[in-house]
Amino acid sequence: MSSGQPAMPPAVAIHGIGAHSGQSVRIHGWLYNLRESGKLLFPIFRDGTGLIQGVLFKKNVPPELFERVRTLTQESSVEVTGTVRAEARAVGGYELDVTDLRVLQAVPLEHPYPITPKEHGIEFLMEHRHLWLRSQRQAAILRVRHEVIKAVRDFFDEDGFTLADAPILTPAACEGTSNLFEVDYFEEKAYLTQSGQLYAEAAAMAVGKTYCFGPTFRAEKSKTRRHLTEFWMVEPEMAFAGLDDVMQLAERLVAYVVERVLTRRAAELKVLERDIEPLRKIKLPFPRLSYDEAVERVRAAGGTLQWGTDLGGTDETLLSQQFDRPVMVHRYPASVKAFYMQPDPVRPELALCVDMLAPEGYGEIIGGSQRIHDLELLQQRIAEHKLPEQAFSWYVDLRRFGSVPHGGFGMGIERVVAWLCGVEHVRETIPFPRTIYRIFP
Amino acid sequence: MSSGQPAMPPAVAIHGIGAHSGQSVRIHGWLYNLRESGKLLFPIFRDGTGLIQGVLFKKNVPPELFERVRTLTQESSVEVTGTVRAEARAVGGYELDVTDLRVLQAVPLEHPYPITPKEHGIEFLMEHRHLWLRSQRQAAILRVRHEVIKAVRDFFDEDGFTLADAPILTPAACEGTSNLFEVDYFEEKAYLTQSGQLYAEAAAMAVGKTYCFGPTFRAEKSKTRRHLTEFWMVEPEMAFAGLDDVMQLAERLVAYVVERVLTRRAAELKVLERDIEPLRKIKLPFPRLSYDEAVERVRAAGGTLQWGTDLGGTDETLLSQQFDRPVMVHRYPASVKAFYMQPDPVRPELALCVDMLAPEGYGEIIGGSQRIHDLELLQQRIAEHKLPEQAFSWYVDLRRFGSVPHGGFGMGIERVVAWLCGVEHVRETIPFPRTIYRIFP
Repeated sequence: MSSGQPAMPPAVAIHGIGAHSGQSVRIHGWLYNLRESGKLLFPIFRDGTGLIQGVLFKKNVPPELFERVRTLTQESSVEVTGTVRAEARAVGGYELDVTDLRVLQAVPLEHPYPITPKEHGIEFLMEHRHLWLRSQRQAAILRVRHEVIKAVRDFFDEDGFTLADAPILTPAACEGTSNLFEVDYFEEKAYLTQSGQLYAEAAAMAVGKTYCFGPTFRAEKSKTRRHLTEFWMVEPEMAFAGLDDVMQLAERLVAYVVERVLTRRAAELKVLERDIEPLRKIKLPFPRLSYDEAVERVRAAGGTLQWGTDLGGTDETLLSQQFDRPVMVHRYPASVKAFYMQPDPVRPELALCVDMLAPEGYGEIIGGSQRIHDLELLQQRIAEHKLPEQAFSWYVDLRRFGSVPHGGFGMGIERVVAWLCGVEHVRETIPFPRTIYRIFP
Repeated sequence: MSSGQPAMPPAVAIHGIGAHSGQSVRIHGWLYNLRESGKLLFPIFRDGTGLIQGVLFKKNVPPELFERVRTLTQESSVEVTGTVRAEARAVGGYELDVTDLRVLQAVPLEHPYPITPKEHGIEFLMEHRHLWLRSQRQAAILRVRHEVIKAVRDFFDEDGFTLADAPILTPAACEGTSNLFEVDYFEEKAYLTQSGQLYAEAAAMAVGKTYCFGPTFRAEKSKTRRHLTEFWMVEPEMAFAGLDDVMQLAERLVAYVVERVLTRRAAELKVLERDIEPLRKIKLPFPRLSYDEAVERVRAAGGTLQWGTDLGGTDETLLSQQFDRPVMVHRYPASVKAFYMQPDPVRPELALCVDMLAPEGYGEIIGGSQRIHDLELLQQRIAEHKLPEQAFSWYVDLRRFGSVPHGGFGMGIERVVAWLCGVEHVRETIPFPRTIYRIFP
């Protein structure tokens, strides 16, 4: 109880505790784990910024303190006082010689913390997502996600793009009329946005280079490891830009994000046991393949892809594993792509579009295109796709009033985070995932 | 036609055109305005990065070029070639002696650009929001909004907060069960989030300091100038924090954002004719008033506010005009505040909460509180407010497993942007506003 101490030791964060080596400090946090070894106790504490192992040697501390720590339950909240000591073998490089511990709220023995160090099924963990986030692995993924988002925003801001948030509540669909979530909007029907692109096009005509970055929604009944019903997407759009500009922007963005995560989140990637060698190879330029070449390569690799159909997950993997960096497949058949894509002037049956496939089988992370800028062609496509003319009237306006060649892309944040973290399923890459079967917690 | 020139002049952005003074350049943009004065033409071009005035003297340019520019319609898209010349009297400080102009898409005379320099009604402008964004004023607001959002994110990131996006689709309501937008979620009912706070509380127990930042929704039938049905909110949350920590964080954030906008968006504030003297006065610390004092002050200023009721718009204005910086009103009666707020230990009829009121009559921009951390008290409040127990079970879990004092706040982005821009109505502060009557475009 350090009764001889004149003042309370300073409260510090575990992350920066090394600066207090040799000093007495207080930390506020939770009991992450507890190991007992004869007359020694090794409680591991977490405070949201890091982990530190405490040490108590029975004969050196008051018996009631030893007993208090020995009976401490997982995730009980505590204030710990102790002396910081450098210890190369310990997690984080320091240990804490515990001199006092105050329990703030004890998790009762009869109602213990549900997520124990043993293995749990995924459904159980998802049901307890509000607690699961406290695990080292989930917190590490959260920090990588944070870094990816920050890097994306810094990239666009430094590159002269102006943020223009697209609306979530929309009167019409962008990616087609199926897979829409319907909202009761004061007795009218509205839909949750599937993409901010059409709005970004309007903003691009106002500010030249723009991006929107927010949640988007797909009511897909997909149960694959790459699908969520609610996910975040960044969508840059540039006036006076063609497909080549779109591809250059996309590869520069991805290279920038990878570099930032490698530089600033090395500790988190280590927690995740992510092999970073493949990530170190992500350097400009990225390979570009025409759809024609892609089909040939997939077939040569044993795939069954037919010209004229979109790439499936297996095709993507057969293709991307041939490269050590993301590969950009451009000029797909227009028939498998969205209505707003500009046709290739040389072969109008192709769209001036690009998909970027991540390495290591993580699939498509970016989809983009040059957009149709000709009024009549756009009207024709809207009619062919049987889209509601009235809902798209404002979008068509953009081709009436100073139309210019323009393009952009969308990048799905969760897929990028899954790739960089080496995480199998995107559900771990967003704090509170939404899937066809889950909207809780 | 610069036929003697060996190479095409470089394409440049208007924003950085000063670096090319004396040189021939190309710009890509739109005709913003055109003035004719005898044998002179003064077209003003915009390219999304700025405005520049072109000059054509009839006898110095080919007749067909002069005629092409003279008949150019507003918002037609163009590629302009010309020589940059410093001109102190011109907008932006430079003029362009136009030597060539290529029309990319001419807005037809018989279907002109709908937003002319004359005055338009607000409903007309809102109906043409996709084009209205091109006006100097709207683009300036958009850039201030961009800066506010960037500053907010930089502030939290530099302060050690980890971003944890809250879900948009939720099974339950945070701010009460009215004013909810209902979504058809695979034949089940879901609701659009009104606040990410409850989820931020879960994340704070995982990472210590966190924030969420995304769109939120209120199906309010409010038609005031301060209400939108869809608006963006940033919500920080801190573990091991009390009301004082919340107030200190709130004032630091607002002072930081104001400083950033003043420093980096002076040009935009000038376009908006914003008097920046009141903004220069926003320095730490901000005044703090107890609710009791606030009631007294409102009544002394002629207001009719009764102790025990929430402040209305008029009360807020009567109060905030007594200060030259934002004022923080704390410890409201618990009965007018949300169920999750921690009672004041000295006077339990008060909640440990704070509202920050912006100066100049812009009303509440921040609402925050310390949250209840005691399990039984929270359960009691949930019962008193007749909230669905099952939907809140995960939230209650946070008090079962290592509960700690914690708190945070929400800051509405549109209200902050309205205040900083000196804009009367929040509908101009978001690219595509959603109100009770409007979901288009």
